[in-house]
Amino acid sequence: MKQFMDKDFLLTTETSKKLYHEYASVMPVLDYHCHINPQEIYEDRAFENITQVWLGADHYKWRQMRSNGVEEKYITGDASDREKFQKWAETLEMAIGNPLYHWSHLELQRFFGYEGWLNGDTAEEVWNLCNEKLQNGMTARKMIEMSNVTLVCTTDDPADSLEWHQKIAADDSFKVQVLPAWRPEKAMNITKPDYTDYLDKLSRMSKVEIVDFKSLIEALKNRMEFFHENGCTISDHSLDYVMYAPASEEQVEEIFRKRLAGGEITPVEKKQFETAFMIALGREYHKKNWVMQLHFAVKRDNNKSIFASCGPDAGIDCISNFTPADQMADFLNALAKTNQLPKTILYSLNPADNATIGTIMGCFQGSEAIGKIQQGSAWWFNDHKEGMIEQMKSLASLGLLGNFIGMLTDSRSFLSYTRHEYFRRIACELIGGWVENGEYPADFKALEKMIKGISYNNAVRYFKFDL
Amino acid sequence: MKQFMDKDFLLTTETSKKLYHEYASVMPVLDYHCHINPQEIYEDRAFENITQVWLGADHYKWRQMRSNGVEEKYITGDASDREKFQKWAETLEMAIGNPLYHWSHLELQRFFGYEGWLNGDTAEEVWNLCNEKLQNGMTARKMIEMSNVTLVCTTDDPADSLEWHQKIAADDSFKVQVLPAWRPEKAMNITKPDYTDYLDKLSRMSKVEIVDFKSLIEALKNRMEFFHENGCTISDHSLDYVMYAPASEEQVEEIFRKRLAGGEITPVEKKQFETAFMIALGREYHKKNWVMQLHFAVKRDNNKSIFASCGPDAGIDCISNFTPADQMADFLNALAKTNQLPKTILYSLNPADNATIGTIMGCFQGSEAIGKIQQGSAWWFNDHKEGMIEQMKSLASLGLLGNFIGMLTDSRSFLSYTRHEYFRRIACELIGGWVENGEYPADFKALEKMIKGISYNNAVRYFKFDL
Amino acid sequence: MKQFMDKDFLLTTETSKKLYHEYASVMPVLDYHCHINPQEIYEDRAFENITQVWLGADHYKWRQMRSNGVEEKYITGDASDREKFQKWAETLEMAIGNPLYHWSHLELQRFFGYEGWLNGDTAEEVWNLCNEKLQNGMTARKMIEMSNVTLVCTTDDPADSLEWHQKIAADDSFKVQVLPAWRPEKAMNITKPDYTDYLDKLSRMSKVEIVDFKSLIEALKNRMEFFHENGCTISDHSLDYVMYAPASEEQVEEIFRKRLAGGEITPVEKKQFETAFMIALGREYHKKNWVMQLHFAVKRDNNKSIFASCGPDAGIDCISNFTPADQMADFLNALAKTNQLPKTILYSLNPADNATIGTIMGCFQGSEAIGKIQQGSAWWFNDHKEGMIEQMKSLASLGLLGNFIGMLTDSRSFLSYTRHEYFRRIACELIGGWVENGEYPADFKALEKMIKGISYNNAVRYFKFDL
Repeated sequence: MKQFMDKDFLLTTETSKKLYHEYASVMPVLDYHCHINPQEIYEDRAFENITQVWLGADHYKWRQMRSNGVEEKYITGDASDREKFQKWAETLEMAIGNPLYHWSHLELQRFFGYEGWLNGDTAEEVWNLCNEKLQNGMTARKMIEMSNVTLVCTTDDPADSLEWHQKIAADDSFKVQVLPAWRPEKAMNITKPDYTDYLDKLSRMSKVEIVDFKSLIEALKNRMEFFHENGCTISDHSLDYVMYAPASEEQVEEIFRKRLAGGEITPVEKKQFETAFMIALGREYHKKNWVMQLHFAVKRDNNKSIFASCGPDAGIDCISNFTPADQMADFLNALAKTNQLPKTILYSLNPADNATIGTIMGCFQGSEAIGKIQQGSAWWFNDHKEGMIEQMKSLASLGLLGNFIGMLTDSRSFLSYTRHEYFRRIACELIGGWVENGEYPADFKALEKMIKGISYNNAVRYFKFDL
Repeated sequence: MKQFMDKDFLLTTETSKKLYHEYASVMPVLDYHCHINPQEIYEDRAFENITQVWLGADHYKWRQMRSNGVEEKYITGDASDREKFQKWAETLEMAIGNPLYHWSHLELQRFFGYEGWLNGDTAEEVWNLCNEKLQNGMTARKMIEMSNVTLVCTTDDPADSLEWHQKIAADDSFKVQVLPAWRPEKAMNITKPDYTDYLDKLSRMSKVEIVDFKSLIEALKNRMEFFHENGCTISDHSLDYVMYAPASEEQVEEIFRKRLAGGEITPVEKKQFETAFMIALGREYHKKNWVMQLHFAVKRDNNKSIFASCGPDAGIDCISNFTPADQMADFLNALAKTNQLPKTILYSLNPADNATIGTIMGCFQGSEAIGKIQQGSAWWFNDHKEGMIEQMKSLASLGLLGNFIGMLTDSRSFLSYTRHEYFRRIACELIGGWVENGEYPADFKALEKMIKGISYNNAVRYFKFDL
Repeated sequence: MKQFMDKDFLLTTETSKKLYHEYASVMPVLDYHCHINPQEIYEDRAFENITQVWLGADHYKWRQMRSNGVEEKYITGDASDREKFQKWAETLEMAIGNPLYHWSHLELQRFFGYEGWLNGDTAEEVWNLCNEKLQNGMTARKMIEMSNVTLVCTTDDPADSLEWHQKIAADDSFKVQVLPAWRPEKAMNITKPDYTDYLDKLSRMSKVEIVDFKSLIEALKNRMEFFHENGCTISDHSLDYVMYAPASEEQVEEIFRKRLAGGEITPVEKKQFETAFMIALGREYHKKNWVMQLHFAVKRDNNKSIFASCGPDAGIDCISNFTPADQMADFLNALAKTNQLPKTILYSLNPADNATIGTIMGCFQGSEAIGKIQQGSAWWFNDHKEGMIEQMKSLASLGLLGNFIGMLTDSRSFLSYTRHEYFRRIACELIGGWVENGEYPADFKALEKMIKGISYNNAVRYFKFDL
């Protein structure tokens, strides 16, 4: 029996161990997509206790506590932090096979030096140990630095001033690059009640008066240029599905005009607007050599009872399984046919889409970049051992795994960089296993290139970061 | 090489063996969903030969015989029982990797003491051995008792008198609880030609005259109370998919009125009626603390040539892959938003729905029960080794496997309790493998709790059985 | 560590090795579906260099080169063959876990005796070695004969004269049967602009004037008889999805009349026409005891920029994930209900359809053939190690793996017969693993029958070839 999560955690063959320890583990971390608040980095946020770090905003954990029958009081309610931690520790014990079990213990090992396991009985010991470290210098910046991170991309609205990114950039005492990433979802959410309020804000920030669809795109281009000057090379979109509902310029202007006048937008019009919006922005990304990230297949805020008390991001989201491959291919072609398709990363929340995405990608690759079209690393609900293995096997079977840009945290927490370690161990076990089984030669020159590439170098090359 | 299906069948690590032999195998069997006829239990049905037991109503086996090119005469026709058995034995030999291969041999081992393997050559020997035992006391009750069963839930219509359940309960010589489960599908099948005949029967049994939708629900509530008094805590619904087509009270009454008057119900109206029906019943389940089982994604009776000669349940059903996640989430929310969602078990016939269900469940968990929303054990066509592993890996990756209520037979046969053994071996191999690989600590206190829970205790707690 | 692709490649247990070396490897190759040009066989095509063989028409490789950022010039453009080969060799190095890695090296081993691995550094050595052999007698016929092939089915249009098949049949110096297979897709593509031109050609070849739907079917029956006389027993259809849109005879005639008059066919009419067309032909296949192959779930020619320069079959196809199970079942029933369903092989490009197909098959099996309805071997984008394992596990779990008709190349290349070896190794590893794990007895009589059946004998029996 292997020891619980020891130095060879998830590594069972000699080749896998060699790949991980010699090539993967020595590479820095590049976290090209996360939800960290840059202000907290600049101000170097400190935490009083582990509940603040772990349970303050982590809806992954909230879901699991609810699955364990825990009352909402101990999850998002007014119970004490110590009580909440106890409930979490008791929940975790039942989470065998769950990524939270591994993430939590990797975080306990790497940041707090705890080598045991957390459950209801050990909760007090862990609580004290963690809090002692948190209250003695383990701040946001410290956690990032301990993780050998070189660069982080946050998630930012076009109307954002990027004040905190600029302050971090100007602060010589912190060496990690913290770059903005462009997420214009508020500009696309045409059916939201406060859409026109947002347009007002965007007009102010861009100094472009938004009076029609054309000026909306102009305003966004203006902000893109500002983001670009602040080091941004990545965009990010959250879509129901990758839609393709083409409409003429006139139709799109008509839809937008209707919305400005307070009219009701039909579902078809919504998709037409989104299509036009995404094509207009996609062309601009291509021009700027930005990457277009598409996240899709999510249905959000499903339990209205919890939503009423907790609001969004409360652990009540699920997969939406309507993801028509035909529209996804047609959308990408709408950009490709004029040679304006930017580098693109496709992330579906539905693991049943793996093969579909793998085959669509192959249609749109090209010489503008190595691995121009990428399937994103197993995302959100798929971000677990099985999900990552499935995603990598699918990618390898249908494309070139060697060009994969690898892992990101997608997290709100400063402790989540251990997810990169988890991913690398799984990747090394998979690839090492192939070598051990005679499926790829023991060509360690090629293997080193691939492992270091997947761990770090491919992403640097792909996003054109200055590292 | 391991011996064929020996005591360590499917168990390859020391931890897996320990988990199975020490924790899983010692637990009784609770079969909370099956299709056994309670009259046969009360009357302690005897069988003349193994063909009667195995091939009399087992459409799983019929399909396989047809796959082997066997003529219908030897399947559902007038060939002799011995001839049919021969054809089955010859078919089984080709069924490598199929659950029927394992189920059949587990049944031969556990009930008949046969340690060899069945094929065309050994059919005569097995025929004689089994029949000798069947004709000498191996009756329905004996099979149940041999299997260490404590409780069985059958599947019953609201208009059923529960006569046989009451007789069994009154019979002190039989210690196993045989409880009814509520399956009101005839009350929901609004487009069936004999729907109004069924309503008449329901009116008679409930003494509530059904004149509108409101009184239909009243009649059902009346019968639910009767079922409740007879120990029922479980409902069961067979749906095309988990639909959500909301309509006003008036619309639903209008649809029902139209049907009573002999009018044609449109597909949209059918879904509106089903939605209203399910919400009304779901609220009542919540009130009574019953469990709501939803079985979906089936298309039945596909081959009309076989249907014409054999009728329903003839081995001609398949997966329906239209299972919109959005509607499933919206339906559950329709109950949850007013805090009236009962404990719920979701079973899809489509294994591609595993992850979807896993993410939807997480949105609706809560403190009313531990593991309030469950994904049902790999159902029907998924009830095989690979299917169970996939279901458990998905469950573990997305939720708390430790709270899983585990296996059921869903069977018409008294020999099928060995499926619980099969499931437990697979579960122990999976979980034991994680421990052996350092993915969970060798914390046998926690493991014992989980293994005994998944085998038996979780279901007792979940359904609130008096055991 | 196992040696790279040695004699026990992919075989890890003693039983797997025995099954492969003693039973599988000794069987000839029957390639019942491919896209080889029969003229090239008759004329015994010779090749100047390995680029002509490997990169001349292989869109699988083109996709991968584009994924590696290679310029189109080196893929389908005017770079030299040596330059193209270099780019391919450099691409292959990154293709860890991809079937092309294994296919390419199996071809290098079996045909060219090269035991190393191909990458940018070894490209020159491999180039010289392969070309030396190609220029010294390794022609099309030689490659086929080296592969122990007994029979090949090509893919042919109903209007084809079958001239080259007849010439091959008349040539006593070549012992391999090269039979036509019937692919009437041009006769079904009612919305293609040149559809009526094709009908003219079909009228000429069949000597049946096509003036309505009825005479279209008559013309096709005439050509089927001609194909039948030339040894054809297999048809092949490429469908978006297996549709079922029933229409009356009059409606279908009306649709066809409209098309002949140059009218616009609606999407609904297209599906109605296809349904009628497929049912008419299916009945004829049943009458002739032909096999009906249905290939579906493909969306073709997606990247219009590449399509503009390369045309079809350029590596720009993907999965289409709209494959309604209900329609597939209803279509098969439309033939089965009158007992006119022919032997049928179902191939979906979407691996998420595996279980759906497995359950639909089971509804339509019957005594006209052993394994009457088959799931085709993992097709196209699924034709890789993981895909084949998944397909066989699904097949085994839901049906009788022992009756599986096994592998085909679906290839345009004379080197692709090694894919049969690859498949057989994977099948033997899977089945041998079950035996080693005690899941099937070490009954080598039964195992030999199954392995030889899956490798070769089942296909001979199924297609009724004269071998």
